[in-house]
Amino acid sequence: MKTVINDLFDYKDLKIVQYKEGFRFSLDSILLAEFIKITPSVKKIIDLCTGNAPIPLILSTKTKATIKGVEIQEKIYNCANESVKINHKESQIEIIRDDCNNLKTLFDSESFDIVSCNPPYFKVNEGSFLNDTEEKRIARHEIKIDLEKIIKMAEYLLKNNGKFYLSHRVERFEEIYLVLKKYNFVVKRIQYIYSKPNDDAKLILIEATKNGKQGMVVNKPVLISEVKTYQNLFEE
Amino acid sequence: MKTVINDLFDYKDLKIVQYKEGFRFSLDSILLAEFIKITPSVKKIIDLCTGNAPIPLILSTKTKATIKGVEIQEKIYNCANESVKINHKESQIEIIRDDCNNLKTLFDSESFDIVSCNPPYFKVNEGSFLNDTEEKRIARHEIKIDLEKIIKMAEYLLKNNGKFYLSHRVERFEEIYLVLKKYNFVVKRIQYIYSKPNDDAKLILIEATKNGKQGMVVNKPVLISEVKTYQNLFEE
Repeated sequence: MKTVINDLFDYKDLKIVQYKEGFRFSLDSILLAEFIKITPSVKKIIDLCTGNAPIPLILSTKTKATIKGVEIQEKIYNCANESVKINHKESQIEIIRDDCNNLKTLFDSESFDIVSCNPPYFKVNEGSFLNDTEEKRIARHEIKIDLEKIIKMAEYLLKNNGKFYLSHRVERFEEIYLVLKKYNFVVKRIQYIYSKPNDDAKLILIEATKNGKQGMVVNKPVLISEVKTYQNLFEE
Repeated sequence: MKTVINDLFDYKDLKIVQYKEGFRFSLDSILLAEFIKITPSVKKIIDLCTGNAPIPLILSTKTKATIKGVEIQEKIYNCANESVKINHKESQIEIIRDDCNNLKTLFDSESFDIVSCNPPYFKVNEGSFLNDTEEKRIARHEIKIDLEKIIKMAEYLLKNNGKFYLSHRVERFEEIYLVLKKYNFVVKRIQYIYSKPNDDAKLILIEATKNGKQGMVVNKPVLISEVKTYQNLFEE
């Protein structure tokens, strides 16, 4: 199948490689990347289930920190690698082809300041499971990894007080909250994304701190239909 | 001290009695009353910490159900009673002067379809504790009742699958969620209220079902500065 080089939305200097048909990066990754706050003390970032690397690419415009991306699927991993190359980001971003369940063999515990993840949203057999290609099924459904395994791995990878960033479907919020709590995360910041003015929120962006103190804020709502540019979307 | 008769915001036919200085009804009660969904099967409603009864008054325009309001403070209870009278709602609304901790002596368990509460938001000694009058302190701080006692009483009062409606400060959401869970409530619907376009949400409105099934929705955000009328605020 043929790959194409697309603009990464309105990030002027960023291009992204993807298949013309098949897995493509999603708006949710852009929203999550813009939601992530990076302080000068952040030196090491890892993005799980990175796809064709939209999150590492956007983060690279905001920080000098080293960024790893992990993708299990070979074809999508190849797109991610190509995307890093055409943007000349090889010195900052490294894409690793591996199962996110295997990262203990690659990294020591408490090695990262930030872990991010736009994970598969659907449980196996939920959603449009049968109609998708194998490649899309793995990207969208919890076949190779599930919510609890991701959060457990994030806890292993993060330094104490490190930040975990997750995008997910609102309807799974209660489950997410309880699993985060189980693995010693405290939800510190939330942002809801609304598609249309009178609709319920479908997407939630979550910032959780490993061993953080209680006290949660809910940032201003984001209404997709009103968004004109995705760059600095969440700045005031 | 002198009482005055005010309009209840833009509810054309409703008046409310309150002291010229001292405790007054708050916008939060209006928002909570508008957030409450009443189906035709709802026959009995009780509003805890009712103040001068803004929630019972607004609900009375939406349903024929009988509505009780419970207020512990004598002066505010008197305002509530006067408010019911000047609106000619005596046949539908009954105001009870009692401690919300004592309601087991007045009502059987599982007697109500809906329990609502705009409770004291602050822990004792939190917020502007010293500057307030005794009356305002009791209305705003958890002196006579606290979050857990309210939720425990709501569980006692509600029928199975009955709905509990609560307004509260966003920063206490995690605590609220865990206490609701402890008393067999499932959070079913949430709405965040934003004061200004770029601010974080301060107020959360919660609908929880006693012994309900998991699955939460987050309704469209409400931005106070854009609200033109409080009537039917949440209808699409």
